[in-house]
Amino acid sequence: MRDSIKHDVMVDKNLMLTALGKKRANIAIRGGNIVNVITEEIYPADIALSGSKIAYVGDVSHCVGKDTEIVDAKDKYIVPGLIDPHIHPEVCKIPITRFAEVAIPRGTTSIFASLDDMMCLAGIEGARFFLDEAKNTPLKVFYTPYAKIPVTPGTGDSPPSTVPHKFGFEELKEVSKWPETVGNLDTVIDWVLSLDEDIIKCIDHLASNRMLVHGHDPFESGPRMQAFLTTGIRSDHVPFSSQEALEKLRSGMWVMFCESPIAHILQDALRLILDNKISVRHASFCIDDMDTQDLLGAGHIDLQIKTAIGAGLDPIRAVQMATLNAAEVQRMDHLIGSITPGRFADVLIVDDLRKFKIDKVFSNGELVALDGKIVKKLKTPKYPKIFLKSFHLKKAVKSADFALRTDKKAKKVKVLVMNIPPYAPMRYRKEAILEVENGVIKPDVENDVLYCAVVERHLKTGNIGLGFISGFNLKGGTIASSLLVPHNNIICLGSNSEDMAFAVNYVAKVGGAQVAIKNKKVVEEIRLPLGGIMADVPPKEMAEKEKAINKAIHNFGCPIERPFFYLMFLDIAGLPDYALSDHGLLEFKTLKYINPIIEIVK
Amino acid sequence: MRDSIKHDVMVDKNLMLTALGKKRANIAIRGGNIVNVITEEIYPADIALSGSKIAYVGDVSHCVGKDTEIVDAKDKYIVPGLIDPHIHPEVCKIPITRFAEVAIPRGTTSIFASLDDMMCLAGIEGARFFLDEAKNTPLKVFYTPYAKIPVTPGTGDSPPSTVPHKFGFEELKEVSKWPETVGNLDTVIDWVLSLDEDIIKCIDHLASNRMLVHGHDPFESGPRMQAFLTTGIRSDHVPFSSQEALEKLRSGMWVMFCESPIAHILQDALRLILDNKISVRHASFCIDDMDTQDLLGAGHIDLQIKTAIGAGLDPIRAVQMATLNAAEVQRMDHLIGSITPGRFADVLIVDDLRKFKIDKVFSNGELVALDGKIVKKLKTPKYPKIFLKSFHLKKAVKSADFALRTDKKAKKVKVLVMNIPPYAPMRYRKEAILEVENGVIKPDVENDVLYCAVVERHLKTGNIGLGFISGFNLKGGTIASSLLVPHNNIICLGSNSEDMAFAVNYVAKVGGAQVAIKNKKVVEEIRLPLGGIMADVPPKEMAEKEKAINKAIHNFGCPIERPFFYLMFLDIAGLPDYALSDHGLLEFKTLKYINPIIEIVK
Repeated sequence: MRDSIKHDVMVDKNLMLTALGKKRANIAIRGGNIVNVITEEIYPADIALSGSKIAYVGDVSHCVGKDTEIVDAKDKYIVPGLIDPHIHPEVCKIPITRFAEVAIPRGTTSIFASLDDMMCLAGIEGARFFLDEAKNTPLKVFYTPYAKIPVTPGTGDSPPSTVPHKFGFEELKEVSKWPETVGNLDTVIDWVLSLDEDIIKCIDHLASNRMLVHGHDPFESGPRMQAFLTTGIRSDHVPFSSQEALEKLRSGMWVMFCESPIAHILQDALRLILDNKISVRHASFCIDDMDTQDLLGAGHIDLQIKTAIGAGLDPIRAVQMATLNAAEVQRMDHLIGSITPGRFADVLIVDDLRKFKIDKVFSNGELVALDGKIVKKLKTPKYPKIFLKSFHLKKAVKSADFALRTDKKAKKVKVLVMNIPPYAPMRYRKEAILEVENGVIKPDVENDVLYCAVVERHLKTGNIGLGFISGFNLKGGTIASSLLVPHNNIICLGSNSEDMAFAVNYVAKVGGAQVAIKNKKVVEEIRLPLGGIMADVPPKEMAEKEKAINKAIHNFGCPIERPFFYLMFLDIAGLPDYALSDHGLLEFKTLKYINPIIEIVK
Repeated sequence: MRDSIKHDVMVDKNLMLTALGKKRANIAIRGGNIVNVITEEIYPADIALSGSKIAYVGDVSHCVGKDTEIVDAKDKYIVPGLIDPHIHPEVCKIPITRFAEVAIPRGTTSIFASLDDMMCLAGIEGARFFLDEAKNTPLKVFYTPYAKIPVTPGTGDSPPSTVPHKFGFEELKEVSKWPETVGNLDTVIDWVLSLDEDIIKCIDHLASNRMLVHGHDPFESGPRMQAFLTTGIRSDHVPFSSQEALEKLRSGMWVMFCESPIAHILQDALRLILDNKISVRHASFCIDDMDTQDLLGAGHIDLQIKTAIGAGLDPIRAVQMATLNAAEVQRMDHLIGSITPGRFADVLIVDDLRKFKIDKVFSNGELVALDGKIVKKLKTPKYPKIFLKSFHLKKAVKSADFALRTDKKAKKVKVLVMNIPPYAPMRYRKEAILEVENGVIKPDVENDVLYCAVVERHLKTGNIGLGFISGFNLKGGTIASSLLVPHNNIICLGSNSEDMAFAVNYVAKVGGAQVAIKNKKVVEEIRLPLGGIMADVPPKEMAEKEKAINKAIHNFGCPIERPFFYLMFLDIAGLPDYALSDHGLLEFKTLKYINPIIEIVK
């Protein structure tokens, strides 16, 4: 088994001897123009590869022997492998082996992942299984554990979301010993500002072990943002406006610009940066979350390079953001991010820098993709039982479980509705007057006020959290999903509790799925039999299913392009202003559960 | 006792509350223009300081209370405290407290030191004493232990230099636990290329503990330099030509440009960089070695900023090299190097950016220097006994001990002379024919071939290494020094063995000194009673003594401006091509002792 990220053995005798010309390189890439992301130059230079690393750059004649394979890169550009410094690959709903199969041809050779879904589902062993699976692919997966699981914290009488495996200081200490671990990720601003004891211990542990603490602070600026920074927070990846991104860069926070199905500020932000002639050395790209259809379609970090060039950024700087800057924000620039000796031989041969058409991808010193197709045969492993039998409802749910009830005599109530804007997965307060029938509050389909529920499915607690939601505008349909990061209970929303009960029971019965249901019939579905979050299917099949289910939901009336991306984060209290856990409606500001029923009005 | 570098406690509640406006800042610096080394901008912004750190940057009104001291910086520039990422402060021959007294007013607030002299003299406790002494000054001393002591390695029958305390893998493991430790420094290229087992273990230990390995590879390029880089070497600080520096930057090695009494490539290198429009993000400054007269005279990192601006570099970039880049090469940019929240409040108020006149220096949130003078009273500690009684000759040396002998019948011999060029402390091969009298080879003063000796003084071994040296051109004088980094045996050179014996005995008798002797009379001397390497005297006094002794040596005929800088490294096998240890003449290439007598010619 390859063990590429092991950085506790730095000295590789063969590599050194190859650089000296005393051993022959395995591969020599000749005739190309190197994009030197350190000096910001492009110039002709050859590269000699030995084992998984780069041995020599320049005139490689002394490293070339009769067994050295010569790769012709005449008139092409030689670019470092692309890096995503902040991604949750599980959200593509395919195993990391399948993910690598499509990410590698797009030029992504390294990602930094928090594996929060794995950790929550199967504990430390789950994360370890994932990392071991990754080691059999050409994709390097660095580990940046999620700061805390459950993400929805408990305070006093407001319990955290129900999960099978927690992650906190003790678990962090354990995974800190893994060679892939470089720091944590998604430390939510409120946990720090509220001086959450476990989080403070985690930050101090990481700092004293020379690891990094990456933040999560969307929409923040001024005093709160700077107070957050005082604790040594390194980066943010979720600025939602150009001005926010610029303020963060100026304040000393590294910024990972996220251009994804749910974030679109890259072009604007880069224009602001260019207008202000600001250095991008502390700026990189990332995707955070995406669908498999994106990876196969528009692209990953390669798309962001093209977007940045389109915004007017110099192509060398765009490549720099995607490579060196991403390596430096994670302090892994000694291993990845440039075409220099001692770094992993993750090398792209690119036809045209502006169009960024990738001809060949080398990873760990091997040719792994050619003309957009993987050439290395990858095989998914046998998944352990915990991934295959992960649904444990207390009992099948009934439609009555989804009815929000009030006084039997009431006729109308004022309720708090989580209103989802179409531009970002936030939940803002909206109030609605709803009718009551025999004590049961009715959704108002016409005015887009739907039921929303989170059904606990790990520990047979029988918990169901209920609330109202707006923004999805389903006219008669119901959608449900067992991908509800990172706790992955079952989320469901709809206009009638019969379909909702059917949907939740269906998801549990098939062992995990995203479903679009109407009149107790499955209109579309994506089965997710691996832990309820992934399916070991070809990426193309997953992408087609994604498109099909989205289309079905759009046909229900939903205006949101990627409905599941707006549903998927609903159990996370790190996004303003409300969350829904298996315990009910949580107010972000106070971290307290609140009653969605405000008052009886009639 | 202040414990400023302790980076295992990152979360400071008071600092966070100050940023939030819930506590009041100690100091607010208002009205200035911040040099933002991250975004490469200059704009008006205030700063709020709390404790030792920066709490807020921007409009600080919410952090200002009636007890907040307001510092007016109207029309001034606000610059981060300057950083020297590679320096041996002991070479100034004054304790770190005295060093801080003069370095702080020049704007240096952080240094990265290897404390090799301390380590060799007094072991781990010596280095710890130094770091503890530093904690009582406003100067932050980060620890980058020397890779190996003794520096002159033993191979087979060629023993290493005799030292009282060794430093290797076991010692590294111990000091790695200290909060000040960030990695090692001066890992010599040959140790790595020869796969020295201890060094390999050190590199792997540092890498697996997320620490850095800095290199030492003067004059290296091409295969050897790139082979060195394959082991994860982060930086070099000793390029001796612009072209060498540029090649290293391009190859992925961070470069610390050293402009010092013995290195003068900064202007040329920057011109080459500017001509090639190359990014300086991986370039910083450092001084490596200097005299106290330099610190008081031309300057430290402030001088390098001025030199760089003089070479045509944009002042923002020059400041960036002296701050952010220096912090990043050492991966300490979360603590120092920018004016941003959470970083130490090391802040300079500068009158004119191009002239770089520093009005005020804040360090750890306190005003510590004003108009070039320290305002904080510093007091040197009581030094432990090991620093006061450090000379242990086997017995007083005699003139006969310095005579290089050959066959009694010989009349002339051909010898190998270490020839020192006037531009760098190297030792190149030169041959000379010398006369023999009764079996004793005579120096040739007229043709500048002098005796040179290293006398062991720690362990009473009685070892004396002898050789010939050229370049000093002493006409009748003798110079000796107990500062011979890092082993600090006694080095002596001269034209007659009587004066040499007198000089060595004198140095030992007074417990350490640099001396200029003629006819058994002390012409000038600098007493170094602390371990034979330092004196607890006012810096001004030390600077005057340095000038006086250099003048005396120039009067002996020496053309080298700083003779002790050319003598001081003679026991280090890391500089080409020969070294002289207490065992004799060492050939760098083979690491073998060789006979300086080549053959009898008559």
